Amino acid sequence: PGKKVLIVYAHQEPKSFNGSLLKIAVEELTKQGCSVTVSDLYAMQFEPRATRNDIVGHLHNSEAFNYGVETWEAYKRGGLSKDLVEEQKKVQEADLLIFQFPLFWFNMPAILKGWMDRVLVQGFAYDLSKVYDGGLLQDKLSLFSFTMGGSKEKYAIRGDIRYLLWPMQHGIMHFCGVKVLEPHICYTPENVSEEKRKEMLAAWSQRLKTLWKEEPIDCSPEWYFK
Amino acid sequence: PGKKVLIVYAHQEPKSFNGSLLKIAVEELTKQGCSVTVSDLYAMQFEPRATRNDIVGHLHNSEAFNYGVETWEAYKRGGLSKDLVEEQKKVQEADLLIFQFPLFWFNMPAILKGWMDRVLVQGFAYDLSKVYDGGLLQDKLSLFSFTMGGSKEKYAIRGDIRYLLWPMQHGIMHFCGVKVLEPHICYTPENVSEEKRKEMLAAWSQRLKTLWKEEPIDCSPEWYFK
Repeated sequence: PGKKVLIVYAHQEPKSFNGSLLKIAVEELTKQGCSVTVSDLYAMQFEPRATRNDIVGHLHNSEAFNYGVETWEAYKRGGLSKDLVEEQKKVQEADLLIFQFPLFWFNMPAILKGWMDRVLVQGFAYDLSKVYDGGLLQDKLSLFSFTMGGSKEKYAIRGDIRYLLWPMQHGIMHFCGVKVLEPHICYTPENVSEEKRKEMLAAWSQRLKTLWKEEPIDCSPEWYFK
Repeated sequence: PGKKVLIVYAHQEPKSFNGSLLKIAVEELTKQGCSVTVSDLYAMQFEPRATRNDIVGHLHNSEAFNYGVETWEAYKRGGLSKDLVEEQKKVQEADLLIFQFPLFWFNMPAILKGWMDRVLVQGFAYDLSKVYDGGLLQDKLSLFSFTMGGSKEKYAIRGDIRYLLWPMQHGIMHFCGVKVLEPHICYTPENVSEEKRKEMLAAWSQRLKTLWKEEPIDCSPEWYFK
């Protein structure tokens, strides 16, 4: 109760299974007394391209544009574009970040990758030697909740899909100091019975009831590749 | 000679190291008598978002938008948006696809992920049971050429970065039947001497001279996770 949750949601259709998962999360977490904010990326027409438009005013080096350097400098002087500042504010306030999306090509949809590319800039999410356990977004939790179009076997190695999650969970969240909860995965919701779909939705709702008691997973390379 | 190459390029700045790598590839391959096409994604302001706008005219199911189903249906009736049709034509004609980009968050920049999401639709790149070695883009080669902001150790597991490449090389290219050549990686070009940078550019040029003699790598899960 009193916890703040940001759900970054990347699906075009509210009536989709991802849309139902979002709705359940908003309802269940609100019922718990959490304050829930949703960044509905498609509805916001969120810009995924990392360009010069993300910097308001002058460039640090207008001779050769370097996105990483320019956004870092812009962050320090308060010169990032309005849409980024708003997303950063939501991240800053959140105790938990939930990413809700359909897996596309073994990965996040581009619109969500663009959120990562543009929002988590140097100075805000990490800094020179402030990475991984020293990252700037410590004391936050994250959870990747996604649907997959294929069976687990298609994406798993020796029955385990953790390898697929390495770039997202370790490479992004852990890098920024954000702790990672077990991913929540729904396999082929489009190819199962209505009854099975309801079970999957109920399981998500059930998990959220005790979410705050969960321990983060070990996100180190050793855990992934032991 | 006579081979067709499509370079999908994702960097904002022509004067960047990625820009130099692109220039070298165009020059060297053209000199060999190849026909080279470049999709300069930022310059084209390529759209990374997968939306209803990708389908011209009516939807298959306008009650609930499903991007995968709609683009598949649109592909079959020739109803994909013009920018996608143009990219698909370039892919269709190419013998080799080179992806040139800076690694962002252990992955492709969103604009390039958007190219994958939107161009490689069902019916064009793969189909119901036509995946992996049976994918629809057989007899094509691909090569991921990218720069990394950190040392190899940062991204490697037991000294090997192949795990990072699994979603791109196996999950996308191999899935469509495209064969994969060894990736070409330049580590921290911004943090090395001018001399070292020149060496890296020369190495790329050198590699391209004998590129057509290279054998594709084994892209199976077994190769990655043996």
